[in-house]
Amino acid sequence: VLGYVPSEVGRSLATRSTRRIGIVAAELTNPFYPHLVEPLHRAFEDAGYRSALYIDRTDDAITVQELADGSLDGVVLTTATVDSVLPRALEDRGIPVVLVNREVDDVATDVVVADNRHGAQMLADLLVQLGHRRIGGVFGPSWTSTGREREEWFVRTLSRRGVHLKDDLVVRSPFGVERGREAIKSLVAAPEPPTAVFAGNDVLALGIIDGAAEMDVSVPGDLTVVGFDDISEASWHRFSLTTVRCNLPRMARSAAEMLLSRLAEPGQPPRRLVLPTEVVLRGSHSAPSAQP
Amino acid sequence: VLGYVPSEVGRSLATRSTRRIGIVAAELTNPFYPHLVEPLHRAFEDAGYRSALYIDRTDDAITVQELADGSLDGVVLTTATVDSVLPRALEDRGIPVVLVNREVDDVATDVVVADNRHGAQMLADLLVQLGHRRIGGVFGPSWTSTGREREEWFVRTLSRRGVHLKDDLVVRSPFGVERGREAIKSLVAAPEPPTAVFAGNDVLALGIIDGAAEMDVSVPGDLTVVGFDDISEASWHRFSLTTVRCNLPRMARSAAEMLLSRLAEPGQPPRRLVLPTEVVLRGSHSAPSAQP
Repeated sequence: VLGYVPSEVGRSLATRSTRRIGIVAAELTNPFYPHLVEPLHRAFEDAGYRSALYIDRTDDAITVQELADGSLDGVVLTTATVDSVLPRALEDRGIPVVLVNREVDDVATDVVVADNRHGAQMLADLLVQLGHRRIGGVFGPSWTSTGREREEWFVRTLSRRGVHLKDDLVVRSPFGVERGREAIKSLVAAPEPPTAVFAGNDVLALGIIDGAAEMDVSVPGDLTVVGFDDISEASWHRFSLTTVRCNLPRMARSAAEMLLSRLAEPGQPPRRLVLPTEVVLRGSHSAPSAQP
Repeated sequence: VLGYVPSEVGRSLATRSTRRIGIVAAELTNPFYPHLVEPLHRAFEDAGYRSALYIDRTDDAITVQELADGSLDGVVLTTATVDSVLPRALEDRGIPVVLVNREVDDVATDVVVADNRHGAQMLADLLVQLGHRRIGGVFGPSWTSTGREREEWFVRTLSRRGVHLKDDLVVRSPFGVERGREAIKSLVAAPEPPTAVFAGNDVLALGIIDGAAEMDVSVPGDLTVVGFDDISEASWHRFSLTTVRCNLPRMARSAAEMLLSRLAEPGQPPRRLVLPTEVVLRGSHSAPSAQP
């Protein structure tokens, strides 16, 4: 086959449209990101756009340079921190940006996030209604909007119901299975260990459940664990995690639609879409009365 | 910041080098790929190359076109099937290609794979030495070199030791957790269910262990399960999977080195590197005597 390949490089100089989208994500071995990146890719594909994934450790200058090289029509950022400079830098260079899942302080771009506030409130209510009072938190990092917002509204809702988290039952940690495993080991070693733990996301919760099993702490018999996101691992029988569903496929689809509508109508004001969340009750919660 | 961004598009027309590598992978929600893609990305980054990930459903013309558009110095293919046309199509267009983990029949490109043959032999020996005779196989698809080779050498080694797999204890399936779960349900329903199951990779094995738990089949008490790859989930306490370590970080590093050396010396003959494998004994195997 002697196929002729039209030069994208030449074409993009002429038309200024490449029909290509960049998706920026953090460590892929964090099992959260594939669940967001895959449906983003599909959504763009269905609309006739190709996407490539840029793995991002830090929002450094090289990344801005690479994304603003003329090969992309727009960019989806999935791993922004609250003080990321990348969204503004891209907007300054005329590259449309959508933030998905996480948002950035003081920057006006299109945003699609889950209703973390309502999700965290519902989980706090659930734990209190089950009768838990000695509650632990393995929160995500405060430099992510998801980590910060989920912690804030979980703690605030508990507090309104008269339950306060003791300092030695709170851990803040990057999102990672190994981090969840370490965190639960330290919480279980506290003088008065918690009867329930809120995890900042499902990935942390998987580590908590796995670490608990390793220490022969039974979930939910000895310890209730609740997560956030509802990634597919949450429904595996070995985890059976009670969690908040953020509906990542829907989040991805909305972000893709938003970016495509921005490409069609560049002048519109920035939009912020907050998708509803719901609690998915599985097998990792129980009343503390069932606990010795 | 009014930063000046050199145009990659303009530069690449002039120099023909972009210092960019394309990595092609299948469904990212298959937890195998992140474990290979992440260290590939790091290895290229350490060498001063940027990489972008192209998610591939089929080796179709659009993909060839996209990869051969002048924006990439080379391509790493992680999800080739035995009859993939992509490697030859890229070579025909002068784009250096390295196949990693899976290889393609009758195409001479650089290749880095694990020693699937030896790994499968060691697992067959292990199961026979433990005393298993009623053995099941949940093999990967025959259109992948990993699926085909692991099955071939597992079956051949068993057979040399006088153990033959019964047809109703053999399933061939795409690599996926859900597929493993379905497969074990059908094997356990056989008139004479297996006392041990070989899984074509760890992702299938995770599904087998999870499906077994769902049916109250205890691993390894009622059922021995062995996997292949040693992805990080294999070491989670809830799975504790006995498996073959393919050392994916090393495979990734070797593939990156091979591609970079090909860019430096385009004329060298194609190389095929087979990395050694070893068995990692964890908690998912036992003698059938422990089984009722």
